[in-house]
Amino acid sequence: MATESTDPGSVRPGGRTARVRAAVLRAAGDALAEGGLARLDLADVARRAEVGRTTVYRRWGSPTQLIADLLADMAEQSLPRTETGTLLGDLRANAQLVRRTLADPRQGALFKAVIAAATCDDQTAAALHRFYEVRVAEWQPCVRQAVERGELPADTDPREVVRAVSAPLYYRLLTSDAPLDEATADRAAEAAVTAARAGVFAKPAD
Amino acid sequence: MATESTDPGSVRPGGRTARVRAAVLRAAGDALAEGGLARLDLADVARRAEVGRTTVYRRWGSPTQLIADLLADMAEQSLPRTETGTLLGDLRANAQLVRRTLADPRQGALFKAVIAAATCDDQTAAALHRFYEVRVAEWQPCVRQAVERGELPADTDPREVVRAVSAPLYYRLLTSDAPLDEATADRAAEAAVTAARAGVFAKPAD
Repeated sequence: MATESTDPGSVRPGGRTARVRAAVLRAAGDALAEGGLARLDLADVARRAEVGRTTVYRRWGSPTQLIADLLADMAEQSLPRTETGTLLGDLRANAQLVRRTLADPRQGALFKAVIAAATCDDQTAAALHRFYEVRVAEWQPCVRQAVERGELPADTDPREVVRAVSAPLYYRLLTSDAPLDEATADRAAEAAVTAARAGVFAKPAD
Repeated sequence: MATESTDPGSVRPGGRTARVRAAVLRAAGDALAEGGLARLDLADVARRAEVGRTTVYRRWGSPTQLIADLLADMAEQSLPRTETGTLLGDLRANAQLVRRTLADPRQGALFKAVIAAATCDDQTAAALHRFYEVRVAEWQPCVRQAVERGELPADTDPREVVRAVSAPLYYRLLTSDAPLDEATADRAAEAAVTAARAGVFAKPAD
């Protein structure tokens, strides 16, 4: 779906069906961010979205399917990558984007809730994995361009470099109460670039 | 508690109270690994542990308190670090230990469950954070020794280096269905060492 906005709750092109979906997914995200997985309830989501309960039950059926659709929507709506002309610049921009998202009270709580939901249900896990595949695919061209510019070894695995940028930020979010500050994000990008330059992220030989 | 074993379910020194705790925590770990947070129930844990239900309710009170005690026990029981004489050797050993734990069906499911539980409850989150502080503290001397040997810059933050080793493995566990293979663990250690040598993990100036 083409859209100018990256906010799942904003007005989008499309008719009533698209508006209902946007309202319901916004409400589901709010409910997850506030109460976590344990308190996600379709009737509550319908009330928050000001949409008929029957519509929500008919279209989404269960909290699991609702979270899977929310993750599909988050992937569709996610921001395009930044191009700065250097690998370190690009990956710093990526790290700061991830940091801002996870440090935002609503978004941080929402990501924690969907990661927790994915540990309990295979369908949700598959939707979560697809979300991260889309995010990694969006950013991997910056690594390919760095290879073309001669900044990185030719056999660098672009996906591993992009994942290396996000990993420390998610690890910090989930395993500590340390703040997700800008220095942490910059360090994640610098560590990934340094290791990539040294050939650590070489693709395994076939 | 001094013990030779690192398995939460093994026989330990101590009397009946310690044996009851060990049996209940083993059962709680099994229940969490099998059914996740949503299906953790004190009566079921008592049945699995062959311990009176009243004992479990009186001593642990709620699933939240039971998970917090399980995490405290996991910290007490966790394996001591390996010393190989080089930073890369030490951190590879750490990465492979984390990898084996997360790739083990029971332990991997248990870690997913406690991470999910921590997103829903502050007391559980505090217990989870303490668990990771203990793990990081256990391994940080290998970074300090590398500084003393001149392998790393003097201002290296040991905790950040140790966290950098674990982060890609947890990120992979939680956001993808890619296998946690030995090459991934080695790469995590190599990336951390390469970045540490380049000064990426310098402590911020006071």
